[in-house]
Amino acid sequence: MQSPFTIIPGGVVAAKGFKASGVCCGIKQAKSKNDLALIVSEVDAVAAGVFTTNAVKAHCVLLNQDHIRDGKARAIVANSGNANACNGERGMTDAKRITQIIAASQGVSERRVLSASTGVIGHALPMDKIEAGLKEVLSKLHGGDASDATQAIMTTDTFPKEMAVQFEIGGVSVRLGGMAKGSGMIEPNMATMLSFLTTDAAIEQPVLQTLLKRVMATTFNAITVDGDTSTNDMCLILANGLAKNALIADPESKEAQQFEAALHAVCLHLAKEVARDGEGATKLVEIVVKNIAAPMKVAKTIANSPLVKTALFGNDPNWGRILAAAGRSGIAFDPAKAEVELAGTTVYANGTPTAFDPAKVSEKMKAKELQIVVDFHQKGGESATVWTCDFSYDYVKINADYHT
Amino acid sequence: MQSPFTIIPGGVVAAKGFKASGVCCGIKQAKSKNDLALIVSEVDAVAAGVFTTNAVKAHCVLLNQDHIRDGKARAIVANSGNANACNGERGMTDAKRITQIIAASQGVSERRVLSASTGVIGHALPMDKIEAGLKEVLSKLHGGDASDATQAIMTTDTFPKEMAVQFEIGGVSVRLGGMAKGSGMIEPNMATMLSFLTTDAAIEQPVLQTLLKRVMATTFNAITVDGDTSTNDMCLILANGLAKNALIADPESKEAQQFEAALHAVCLHLAKEVARDGEGATKLVEIVVKNIAAPMKVAKTIANSPLVKTALFGNDPNWGRILAAAGRSGIAFDPAKAEVELAGTTVYANGTPTAFDPAKVSEKMKAKELQIVVDFHQKGGESATVWTCDFSYDYVKINADYHT
Repeated sequence: MQSPFTIIPGGVVAAKGFKASGVCCGIKQAKSKNDLALIVSEVDAVAAGVFTTNAVKAHCVLLNQDHIRDGKARAIVANSGNANACNGERGMTDAKRITQIIAASQGVSERRVLSASTGVIGHALPMDKIEAGLKEVLSKLHGGDASDATQAIMTTDTFPKEMAVQFEIGGVSVRLGGMAKGSGMIEPNMATMLSFLTTDAAIEQPVLQTLLKRVMATTFNAITVDGDTSTNDMCLILANGLAKNALIADPESKEAQQFEAALHAVCLHLAKEVARDGEGATKLVEIVVKNIAAPMKVAKTIANSPLVKTALFGNDPNWGRILAAAGRSGIAFDPAKAEVELAGTTVYANGTPTAFDPAKVSEKMKAKELQIVVDFHQKGGESATVWTCDFSYDYVKINADYHT
Repeated sequence: MQSPFTIIPGGVVAAKGFKASGVCCGIKQAKSKNDLALIVSEVDAVAAGVFTTNAVKAHCVLLNQDHIRDGKARAIVANSGNANACNGERGMTDAKRITQIIAASQGVSERRVLSASTGVIGHALPMDKIEAGLKEVLSKLHGGDASDATQAIMTTDTFPKEMAVQFEIGGVSVRLGGMAKGSGMIEPNMATMLSFLTTDAAIEQPVLQTLLKRVMATTFNAITVDGDTSTNDMCLILANGLAKNALIADPESKEAQQFEAALHAVCLHLAKEVARDGEGATKLVEIVVKNIAAPMKVAKTIANSPLVKTALFGNDPNWGRILAAAGRSGIAFDPAKAEVELAGTTVYANGTPTAFDPAKVSEKMKAKELQIVVDFHQKGGESATVWTCDFSYDYVKINADYHT
């Protein structure tokens, strides 16, 4: 089958009419690292977003939830090194001030600007540095390559995450690109830590929102690093219509499906990259749970078990921990009918371990990508896939040392 | 107020008519460590128990759930070094064989013997070693001191856990003692990994079961090391009536309350010791959650957050992680009304951080025992306390190296 899209360079500036930039304005302690990013569409774009379900929401999340009700946006501005969460009235004032500065520069209402922050909770933003930084980041907007912006949203990420694709809608060439950051406090619930997507597709706002939400379920909402859903999670998409395709107005149309396939591919790539680059991770682990009620709940429980994650780090084929984690998920099953496959080898079936060679399975577990399949063989059951990473000394090191 | 009981030595053999012993029969790799324990009452005792809610249950749990329906028991036999879980038909045959050998030695039905196993899942028990060990452990039964038995149920525990108390019921002196083991795969749900209690109180079985279950909620079910509820959890209590107090037949009577107070004290001590000795733990952390719906769910979410646990290890006053964990617990609250106290210092209130000195709070966090209080100030809300430990390099080391 011919791939429905082509991977292209450019990330969030791959689509027509988008520019971006990233600069270092001194929010992070490391003076040389970019910490302020800006993405601008040259015309008003249709905007959709999904936000953290955490009861504690950062000021930028609360502000965006208000601004996005208009369904349109011109720019996204983001900083790393400071979450601007739990900062009381000042937190909201600062978040608004940032959108006002960007809005003024583009000659639009502040409601057309969305913002995001990521970093430590409960420290006021250094507004003097940020105001100087905003001037610089505005002066450097460019197309072609978005790596400076992508780097500017990283915290403990070890590599930047971006992807763009080109595909056709009704014979018209359309582009869609995105970037994301993750690392720790990652079990997105309706969105990931930060992910920004841009497209030149022409699409109605309610359709864009519907497709974004649908795609989340099997991409960003299917990853976990440490089970800690963040206060700042968001995924935003801007669609400026400059590709001039026939407006997508029906979420079930063939054109919407073409768009959704591309959106899913970009989000899945970014989500897996976030799991792969989880704090201290040495490998990417795909957990497939089959034929059971609530498979996502079972898969997430396995993925978040500290005992499973440390066994994965130690290349230990300790399937008992996988089955025990499934057993505490709250979803009923008959252990005698369950089957566990680890790195391609069936290690448990018919209520008892198989005669596998632990040394051989351990050797296979040393791979950078690894799959666990648990099949419960329940009639009428469903399946789900979750991506996670292992739990190493470096997770402890990073998080015991990441001081307030 | 005068304490309603006196702490006495003897653990599970402190009560009249109980003997115990512990030996090394070679189940564990470390040849010198005890791995087989036996507790025997000289007369039939009323027995009650609570067991893991994990869908995957070890063979000993399934067998006990059957035996305990009679409400009476004469002995408890336990091994460490092997969980005897997920071993198919052979697992159940082995568990039965062990109870048969002990039953024959005491001249009672095998249904009067309860058994327990703890260790790695999915390895068949070495029955030749165990049968030789059972002879030895039977020959060494003794009163006075139960430390050999207490040591025989340890796995990655670093110290034995036991306690006994003496108190009065209706003017008659009664004794109650217990032992427990924990360390990893610890978030008991209806019971802890293994805890055995003995008393010479005269009490009816339904009352004993009711009081045991009630006490669990605020003791063993209120601790967590890593959130991984085990397949083998159980708490058993034998009451042989030899204290000759007037039979306790009403769970709401004054006598039942006296008994419950002592039972609670012993279980709370043992539960906190299990949390203090969690795998890799450097400190015991008490988490008090006040004035919110479902406070136990909020407290457990905070206690199991890898980000909170690593911050505790790093003595980092990162209250943002505590509030973020509460926020993802699924229980709604207004962050502006929440208040966080860390090691005696209020660090967050009125929607914003207080002007605390991070260095001073960090210094206080170096204590071996530490308290976190989160008050949500919801009218009609409830409160709960959970005990946990921090998350250190050694947790990763222990569990990445604990090979199958």
